[in-house]
Amino acid sequence: MTVAFERIAIIGLGLIGSSVARVVRKHGLAEHISVCARSPETRQAAMDLGLADTVFSDPEKAVADADFVLLCTPLGTYKKLAKGFASSLKPGAIVSDVGSVKESAIRDIGPFMPEGVAFVPGHPVAGTENSGPYSGFAELFKGRWTILTPPDGTDPKAVEAVTDFWVRSGSMVEIMDAAHHDLVLAITSHLPHLIAYNIVGTADDLETVTESEVIKFAAGGFRDFTRIAASDPVMWRDVFLGNRDAVLEMLGRFNEDLSALQKAIRYKDGDALEALFTRTRYIRREVIEAGQADPDEAPADAD
Amino acid sequence: MTVAFERIAIIGLGLIGSSVARVVRKHGLAEHISVCARSPETRQAAMDLGLADTVFSDPEKAVADADFVLLCTPLGTYKKLAKGFASSLKPGAIVSDVGSVKESAIRDIGPFMPEGVAFVPGHPVAGTENSGPYSGFAELFKGRWTILTPPDGTDPKAVEAVTDFWVRSGSMVEIMDAAHHDLVLAITSHLPHLIAYNIVGTADDLETVTESEVIKFAAGGFRDFTRIAASDPVMWRDVFLGNRDAVLEMLGRFNEDLSALQKAIRYKDGDALEALFTRTRYIRREVIEAGQADPDEAPADAD
Repeated sequence: MTVAFERIAIIGLGLIGSSVARVVRKHGLAEHISVCARSPETRQAAMDLGLADTVFSDPEKAVADADFVLLCTPLGTYKKLAKGFASSLKPGAIVSDVGSVKESAIRDIGPFMPEGVAFVPGHPVAGTENSGPYSGFAELFKGRWTILTPPDGTDPKAVEAVTDFWVRSGSMVEIMDAAHHDLVLAITSHLPHLIAYNIVGTADDLETVTESEVIKFAAGGFRDFTRIAASDPVMWRDVFLGNRDAVLEMLGRFNEDLSALQKAIRYKDGDALEALFTRTRYIRREVIEAGQADPDEAPADAD
Repeated sequence: MTVAFERIAIIGLGLIGSSVARVVRKHGLAEHISVCARSPETRQAAMDLGLADTVFSDPEKAVADADFVLLCTPLGTYKKLAKGFASSLKPGAIVSDVGSVKESAIRDIGPFMPEGVAFVPGHPVAGTENSGPYSGFAELFKGRWTILTPPDGTDPKAVEAVTDFWVRSGSMVEIMDAAHHDLVLAITSHLPHLIAYNIVGTADDLETVTESEVIKFAAGGFRDFTRIAASDPVMWRDVFLGNRDAVLEMLGRFNEDLSALQKAIRYKDGDALEALFTRTRYIRREVIEAGQADPDEAPADAD
């Protein structure tokens, strides 16, 4: 089997970057991996874990000679990075990213890309609440979807090459308009994270219930929210800043529905509650049938 | 090892009732189990699974001769059940329950208990999103907390016997005031369920994002909410009706915090977002350290 790209540059070696490096190693998807990381500890980890052939602190050096450059840093770093390394890119190189917001990625990276370099924005919808180079694993993308949002006029060959890369990494690939991606992810990922961060913050602030009680009795449902609310703070700050409008729109819908639910509880409208709780149940089955959740996952709730 | 009780009557054979029956069998905690279930299918399942020595559709018959009667039905059934079987209880019997709201349980069951019968309200904080007699398992209570909320004047020997029963079922036991229990569970269990039901409902109602997209890209965080929102509709309807005031209080706090978070997103206050997301992260670690979550649970979120 041939490599997907001769030389890959991975910018940022967190959960996603280090999982990509692992999957590239495992399936032999590249001859050479260069890793760019800001901290000496991460660069050392890259060498110790065998995830890099060369390591750099300077993105311009990391991308030189690379056929495929993959940005795996928080969204807020994109503009400065792209501006910095653009002139070092090899003609014919393909640049992509893994960020959770695609319109802002296109806005921050696109304008800096030189003639002859293709930018194919991407987003593997997979992850855990852990971060850093040691948290990655090669199976992270297996059976999950990667969404590509190439702007009009992107070289179809480049889109094909990035699609091939993700498919060989175990992922399924869907092509989507960037604005629509941001709307879909606002409801399936960004709003769930916002809600989880919020409820854990609320619980932490209570005077009537102690923190120790919240922790001891977390098996009642709360613990699932603590997991999501343990996700990387900087990455998620940038997601909410980058996808502001879509998140605010989804949050508006959520709030309307929550007000109706609050009213149903206040006025003891048991029929309305039962109707909603019955309707939501089948969606779980469909998520399991679509292979996006395991029916035997750890218990979630309590009676 | 001696039995905990000679004869146990389990009223309702859903997830919790059938898990109790399994743990009683596994550890030999009783000589005889009588099961009361409304549907012929559940009574047949009780016999097929070897979870009952005798089965009844009539609660009055099921509790006769029982040393320990455990209510495992939705909270909304308590009053009628207690009123119905009270006169059939054996002198010296202990009645308990597994419901998620304790003040309403005391209000609905307490007044009907005859002289010489002790009522020890209980709540094992454990569960899954599955229901019915086939969903139970003997390990459900292992390492989890069971909260007992005996009203003033409850026979201490009865509290001790119920404590012993849950400890021998693998659970840890905490004694708590009923009103405080209801407040603690409002934040650690009831509000998380309400929020999960709500967001799944919101996603289901969108016109801009299709249901198929919500399901395909659920690995971004949404799937954890679908699991919680798959919990038993009737049980949860009764929880929200039964713990109305505490749930509305916690929901009020949650809404205040969410408004502040919404404002931080609208005005691009990245520092406020990062500060909250950093603060919530350590709570996950504490939940794991307390043994109430597994660090290797299925991945929850995506970048």
